[in-house]
Amino acid sequence: MIFRQLFEPLSSTYTYLLGCEETSLAVLIDPVIVAVERDLAEITRLGLTLAYTLDTHIHADHITAALELKKQAGSKIAAPACDRLPCADLGIEEGRPLTVGGIVLHPLHTPGHTDGHFAYLAGDRVFTGDALLIDGCGRTDFQNGDADALYKSVREKLFSLADDVLVYPAHDYKNRRVSSIAQEKKRNPRLGGKRTLEQFKNIMANLNLPYPTFIDYAVPGNRQCGVCPCELPALLEKYCRHMTESRQG
Amino acid sequence: MIFRQLFEPLSSTYTYLLGCEETSLAVLIDPVIVAVERDLAEITRLGLTLAYTLDTHIHADHITAALELKKQAGSKIAAPACDRLPCADLGIEEGRPLTVGGIVLHPLHTPGHTDGHFAYLAGDRVFTGDALLIDGCGRTDFQNGDADALYKSVREKLFSLADDVLVYPAHDYKNRRVSSIAQEKKRNPRLGGKRTLEQFKNIMANLNLPYPTFIDYAVPGNRQCGVCPCELPALLEKYCRHMTESRQG
Repeated sequence: MIFRQLFEPLSSTYTYLLGCEETSLAVLIDPVIVAVERDLAEITRLGLTLAYTLDTHIHADHITAALELKKQAGSKIAAPACDRLPCADLGIEEGRPLTVGGIVLHPLHTPGHTDGHFAYLAGDRVFTGDALLIDGCGRTDFQNGDADALYKSVREKLFSLADDVLVYPAHDYKNRRVSSIAQEKKRNPRLGGKRTLEQFKNIMANLNLPYPTFIDYAVPGNRQCGVCPCELPALLEKYCRHMTESRQG
Repeated sequence: MIFRQLFEPLSSTYTYLLGCEETSLAVLIDPVIVAVERDLAEITRLGLTLAYTLDTHIHADHITAALELKKQAGSKIAAPACDRLPCADLGIEEGRPLTVGGIVLHPLHTPGHTDGHFAYLAGDRVFTGDALLIDGCGRTDFQNGDADALYKSVREKLFSLADDVLVYPAHDYKNRRVSSIAQEKKRNPRLGGKRTLEQFKNIMANLNLPYPTFIDYAVPGNRQCGVCPCELPALLEKYCRHMTESRQG
């Protein structure tokens, strides 16, 4: 399997390109609209045909490139069925693998960050979206987030995978790129070791995170498989200025 | 490929079991003598035949299980040719891959931690021994260690591998299990980013590490492919007591 982990620095998002060597068919997991050119260039360079884009959930921090890639590359849009997106070509459900050439992606319903969140298992790699991050997890305070559900999704579903399964998250803010189920079971400070549900809920209830910068634009845009608000250029500029200033400060 | 990352807690060593599904032949990278029973049990459980043990270098912190596994499982001993171990069945050299069934291991001479150190590349995984650790590297103050050579080995040889190659080190002391070339290039605090040779040499010259507990036993024992000193049980007991006390303190 051809494999590329691609990083988009504005939202610190990892997009995963999986390609089948025999059929040259490819799938992109969690593509980001501002990185469409990068993704298309990589796909062309590798001689692949993009068959599907596949999102783990309705993102609140960036806009999916699904619709734009459909327009430019002719790819189909796969998304969790329970989110009922009219723009999706294929609704993902647990128990119904998505097959792209020789690549088989097993959807794992992992609610908690959002209620419609899925992880995808392909061979010895699991793409955990925002359910399980390296030494962390996604927040649970919007989009029907639910700490009880996330604890169950991670501890009962993801942690029941084999120890050596590689964990590829949707984000990392410290340039870490990969972990494993054994590593997260052992040392994830929120969900690993002997953390109880009560401890986890207490951690999540006291994160005191700010209201997400883009959520009011990203969620409606992503419910349309990736439509940017007209205000996006100005928003991005404002966001970049804010990030630059806060890093200097 | 069957793959298992096995952890030995006394020396915090990772041993890697690679198995070929078609031929059932297996290789163990950096097996540890105190974990022989564990390794044999796993090999039996998976229905594999151990064809080779393969060490990355002459270890100073634990004794290899190569000779013991040869006795108990009939495996051959592969070790860096330049170390000239009379007990080795096969001398490893760069440019001459070790093939075990469908598994092909490409030796990469990576001196600096020891002069005879090798990393092994198998598909999209590199077993980096003590040359490159997650957010770190092996020390360079004994066994012909050389910070200049290690800088070159990591920056020129290992960092020239593809970004998505998975880095599997010989040790981790914080329960981390896996990294990638992109991750280490970006954030390894000793060797990543824009670290110059002078900065690296300065870091390595000022680590102020204690003389290794086992080195005077381990190195002669490992030069015989894994012979324990008669004092080992007493030494281990002393070491365990020391570790327990220092963790409590």
